Amino acid sequence: MTAFDKSNAWENDRAHVIHPYTDFSTFSNEGSQIIERAEGMYVTDTDGNKLLDGIAGLWCVNIGHGRKEMAETIAEQVMNMQYYNPFGHSSNIPAATLGAKLAELAPGDLNHVFYTCGGSTANDAAIRLVHYYFDMKGQHRKKKIISRQNGYHGATYVAASLTGIHGTKTGFDRIGEDFITHVSAANLYDKPEGWSDGDYCDYLVREFEARIQQLGPDNVAAFIAEPIMGAGGVLVAPDGYHKRMWEICKKYDMLYIADEVVTAFGRLGEWFASEAIYGYQPDILVCAKGISSGYIPLGATLISTEIYDVISKPQCVGGVLSMGLTYFGHPVACAAALKNIEILERENILGNVKEVGTYFQDSAKSLLNQPIVGDVRGSQLMMGIDLVADKKTKTPIDMSEKAAGTIFQKCIERGVIIRPVGDCLVLSPPLIISKEQCDQIINTVNESITEFVAQR
Amino acid sequence: MTAFDKSNAWENDRAHVIHPYTDFSTFSNEGSQIIERAEGMYVTDTDGNKLLDGIAGLWCVNIGHGRKEMAETIAEQVMNMQYYNPFGHSSNIPAATLGAKLAELAPGDLNHVFYTCGGSTANDAAIRLVHYYFDMKGQHRKKKIISRQNGYHGATYVAASLTGIHGTKTGFDRIGEDFITHVSAANLYDKPEGWSDGDYCDYLVREFEARIQQLGPDNVAAFIAEPIMGAGGVLVAPDGYHKRMWEICKKYDMLYIADEVVTAFGRLGEWFASEAIYGYQPDILVCAKGISSGYIPLGATLISTEIYDVISKPQCVGGVLSMGLTYFGHPVACAAALKNIEILERENILGNVKEVGTYFQDSAKSLLNQPIVGDVRGSQLMMGIDLVADKKTKTPIDMSEKAAGTIFQKCIERGVIIRPVGDCLVLSPPLIISKEQCDQIINTVNESITEFVAQR
Repeated sequence: MTAFDKSNAWENDRAHVIHPYTDFSTFSNEGSQIIERAEGMYVTDTDGNKLLDGIAGLWCVNIGHGRKEMAETIAEQVMNMQYYNPFGHSSNIPAATLGAKLAELAPGDLNHVFYTCGGSTANDAAIRLVHYYFDMKGQHRKKKIISRQNGYHGATYVAASLTGIHGTKTGFDRIGEDFITHVSAANLYDKPEGWSDGDYCDYLVREFEARIQQLGPDNVAAFIAEPIMGAGGVLVAPDGYHKRMWEICKKYDMLYIADEVVTAFGRLGEWFASEAIYGYQPDILVCAKGISSGYIPLGATLISTEIYDVISKPQCVGGVLSMGLTYFGHPVACAAALKNIEILERENILGNVKEVGTYFQDSAKSLLNQPIVGDVRGSQLMMGIDLVADKKTKTPIDMSEKAAGTIFQKCIERGVIIRPVGDCLVLSPPLIISKEQCDQIINTVNESITEFVAQR
Repeated sequence: MTAFDKSNAWENDRAHVIHPYTDFSTFSNEGSQIIERAEGMYVTDTDGNKLLDGIAGLWCVNIGHGRKEMAETIAEQVMNMQYYNPFGHSSNIPAATLGAKLAELAPGDLNHVFYTCGGSTANDAAIRLVHYYFDMKGQHRKKKIISRQNGYHGATYVAASLTGIHGTKTGFDRIGEDFITHVSAANLYDKPEGWSDGDYCDYLVREFEARIQQLGPDNVAAFIAEPIMGAGGVLVAPDGYHKRMWEICKKYDMLYIADEVVTAFGRLGEWFASEAIYGYQPDILVCAKGISSGYIPLGATLISTEIYDVISKPQCVGGVLSMGLTYFGHPVACAAALKNIEILERENILGNVKEVGTYFQDSAKSLLNQPIVGDVRGSQLMMGIDLVADKKTKTPIDMSEKAAGTIFQKCIERGVIIRPVGDCLVLSPPLIISKEQCDQIINTVNESITEFVAQR
């Protein structure tokens, strides 16, 4: 076996790897922290620092790190059948079995799966399939997609253009500006002074319907939304928001695409959040991350029987559904996903989320005692902590203070990983977390904020 | 360990999996062939049919199927560190080590790697990076991309739009039509009657330069091309074509993107074909497939030091390079790629390609004796066999005869997998193939064509 030489890893990384979200003002001096080992709730870097992983890798390691039975299942599948193409009329046992399992777990008639390699490609495929669906129905103008400010939908050119986070766009072009438009984020913390949650929800629904009217309902194909916004700052919508947005979609013959890349597979205590928590039935449900707990790259676009019935015909004599990645339904990825789902079921990990998640959210409310914490929000094991200069006006803390980044570093020094996103601290631990580990995370964040405030 | 139940695989697949390139006129009756096992040069379906894999999964299983040391390396990496995010200043040992190895193997100053999950995302990332590069240089209008008819560049919305194969576009929308344009394929078989190869090359180069002039050189960012077109029908360019196209790119300050998803990692007997075989140095080189032999999904966009120097600065105060997939530099995928490269080196598999590849191409020329074989072309272990109605006029065989699909089925019955693509039969076996196995493939294709012709 190869024991990769770690002695040159830092230099090799700095010299040759172009990381996503690199800050090039410091990278050439600092390079990267090299994570060498991972087990359960912890990761360890090449300097031997063992860190409690408060972000589950990146919203994805739901079952925790370094599971032996995952390694065994993956190795077994590599030996049995590591790859053969899924094109035309060819398949493999894990892809077929996982397809049936996803159909069983997913709400309503989301019974058909188009596999990809992650969330970006699953959202990208969703948009291609939406356009194809309306073409097949003869509605050739019905192509516009309504997304949201602060929504995060990935990093292919189209997925990045669906994304509504301004900070991710600086210096980058967009594509599809003729068909992608953004409405307001649903962010209770930002609702206008004096409004009730209901007033705010009414406003958002009205804005959405007005946009559809402005674009022309015959031109609008779909709405795409995360149940709770993830990378946009764990933004929580007012009660009833999703159901009402869904009703508007139905009113105008639009499809509702639920981007559950972060929320599916247990992060909110359910397999999928849309129907179980928010009471609406998406036409397309996009998942990735937790589907395989990140052990092997995998994404899946689940579509309804109604859509399948339309697209499952030749579009011309001899026509085929000419889209799909080489690694569609990759047998090793699908085997990893099946074992991951089995572990989530066997250990009742969703039950743990419901129990510990409430405790996590309740405990974190104590952070509101900090002078710079304006909001602590989220649900179950998904949390955003907003840093503000002024609690009353909700003015965000000035970016020049580098508050989130500094607090992140102070947490690392104390052995806990959190994620700084703009002026927000984001937490999304593995779903196997204990109450004691919740305490450790919250206490560490609290101490780090206290130290930051003292040093301002 | 999970032994996935194979008894329901066919039904589960048919009921729940939406395959790429499905022919829905027959799928609901026929369902999929389920590949259950794979070892060396062979795959075996759930009915026990053992088939010689003449297409290496899908141009990718370069080292052959089911390698035990791949399973071991993958399992070891899963246990050591299966995932942690690569964002910001974080990395892992396999991603760093592979970055250095790719820089060592790649020609010239292609020393920086942006990882993705496969070829589609690597091409998609290349286009985003090209646009970002020219924005960083202040050349905000220099954004148009020239691709080629019959080129295949993947299945994200942008990659599918770069693709120039008309059959893949029917019923599907394109994106980026304002910046993506296609020039002619370079296809020696299709050169006009009476022209020399040189005349044809002159024509293609003139067409390219005229298109640049028409678009305005200040508006044209890059040219993207496969060294030999893959899915477009294994189309081979005239001698000197790539070098001359590259010279035109340099003349107009354009970038040359070599899509080596199929050709890299040994298929043509070299690590990369661009410089070693065709004598030009791309600014961006896209690879996938053979990089990990398809064992775990992985793609990589290699960029030159010149480009890196431009993009490795903050684009604004506090700005970061805000693009990248969750599974960028996935440690398990990168570990698989490193072991794959080690095997290619240790077993001198590129040497085998050079020896067996020439034999394969020479042997296949015998197929030209068939009345419906118009052309046998390719290089080393990449081959296209054109089926024609008339050899003199080169009229393709009528699609209603379903010649390629029928011959594919007849090969399957004889224990050999080939790939039907339109009116072309495509071959791309694992690089460990022996001369005897080459004979078996060519003989099987020959017998199958003979039978098809007899039954016409």
